[in-house]
Amino acid sequence: MRLGMIQFEPRLGQIAANTERVLGLLQNAPSADLWVLPELASSGYAFGSREAAYAAAETLDNSSYLLALQEWARSSGSWVVTGFNERSGDLLYNSAVLLGPSGQKGLYRKLHLFLDEQNFFTPGNLGLPVFDTPWGKLGMLVCFDWMFPEVWRLLALEGVQLMAHPSNLVLPWCQTAMPGYALTNRIFTATCNRVGAEGGLHFTGQSLLVSPTGEALLRGSGDQEEVLVAEVDWQAASDKAITSRNNAFGDRRTAVYGIEIKASGEQK
Amino acid sequence: MRLGMIQFEPRLGQIAANTERVLGLLQNAPSADLWVLPELASSGYAFGSREAAYAAAETLDNSSYLLALQEWARSSGSWVVTGFNERSGDLLYNSAVLLGPSGQKGLYRKLHLFLDEQNFFTPGNLGLPVFDTPWGKLGMLVCFDWMFPEVWRLLALEGVQLMAHPSNLVLPWCQTAMPGYALTNRIFTATCNRVGAEGGLHFTGQSLLVSPTGEALLRGSGDQEEVLVAEVDWQAASDKAITSRNNAFGDRRTAVYGIEIKASGEQK
Repeated sequence: MRLGMIQFEPRLGQIAANTERVLGLLQNAPSADLWVLPELASSGYAFGSREAAYAAAETLDNSSYLLALQEWARSSGSWVVTGFNERSGDLLYNSAVLLGPSGQKGLYRKLHLFLDEQNFFTPGNLGLPVFDTPWGKLGMLVCFDWMFPEVWRLLALEGVQLMAHPSNLVLPWCQTAMPGYALTNRIFTATCNRVGAEGGLHFTGQSLLVSPTGEALLRGSGDQEEVLVAEVDWQAASDKAITSRNNAFGDRRTAVYGIEIKASGEQK
Repeated sequence: MRLGMIQFEPRLGQIAANTERVLGLLQNAPSADLWVLPELASSGYAFGSREAAYAAAETLDNSSYLLALQEWARSSGSWVVTGFNERSGDLLYNSAVLLGPSGQKGLYRKLHLFLDEQNFFTPGNLGLPVFDTPWGKLGMLVCFDWMFPEVWRLLALEGVQLMAHPSNLVLPWCQTAMPGYALTNRIFTATCNRVGAEGGLHFTGQSLLVSPTGEALLRGSGDQEEVLVAEVDWQAASDKAITSRNNAFGDRRTAVYGIEIKASGEQK
């Protein structure tokens, strides 16, 4: 299968313009089976107030942005992971949504909120869900979630083969850490970052797709809108063997760690 | 304080020659307060049989290698972390030993055994101890332990500021992953690798000291014996703040992770 990433510059508060921009990039892109877009791709990032964040939010079921992407997924037969400014009742979540050709397939709400996001958004309350796709198991994390090794490990132990990671990164560190997460968990990581600046924040681009052996399969520029596409063999993330006698999951000394989390199918 | 690493080529089974080599390198080195040496620095690595591994092992209390290093630590007033082929009764452990000027200060036995080590060594049975030094809290891991994010995280949450990581690396991945461990745990990582080849195994050198912000403070060559020294500010590893409103440890969503491990002083 082919995985694509749309590294672009959302416009703050302009849902219609962002929808048009994403659709334009997708319609002119090489074909891909699954697309990953940045965090808050529908709305931009650096809101000046909670009111501004709220005004740029939509509900899952009545979002002009998601409906347009859903129609594109249906007509093209492809899947999409996008960051989404989600309103649920009076609350806002910094979410990631998985769309398939036949409808919405998954929702994740960012667990670890960064800086002033804490003024606008409610911390995620859906845990760490795992989603089935035609190619295997997919997990979603959003931007600053990258900093917490627990979430990558837990999802990998649940069988996730590819982590879709919509981002609006401003710190210089995530792209340095990502090969380690891919290597130690033997998974693919697809970090789709935005470019541009908002309210004093400079977003660093350099979207990054890493293989389970730590290779950078795609790497975006630091400041340009780009469409990036690569072949991904999800089965490579099912093989946790390191040598003929070592296994990244099987060799874990769980009794020593004192951790009760388990790999799928493993006894507690 | 100054941290040094002795990247060298131990000779298989030759304890006396390895002792002499290490002492020669230390005596001609720039001054340092704490030295990190490779895995199995006393004995070499690729034993052809358990008998050969056993013949090159010593007990903690009666080791010519450790006694020589201990005398050097006493006379120079410095500390040493060295890999050590440890015999305890009939069992062998792939160990790391911490020596201070006034005697042995710590022992760690490798938890995750690589390839044919499983023919010779018993998996570590001392858990993940933390050691006090004049500069702060030190943890020890050995070589293939690098592959398991749990051990880095657990030791960091226990307050470890610097991880001493004696290694005999043959795979190409550890040095790629290490900046991520340093960054996400906000600790120093000191991977001292050996060079040379034994029994078809090629050791990759490239010893690596990484700061809590992911910078490579020292990086060895791939094939030369080298003495590497850098200044290390252990206090930098006590500060887990990422921004004015984010903290690498404080922002953990432990209830979501379902993990009962705790940071020092944190309630379960």
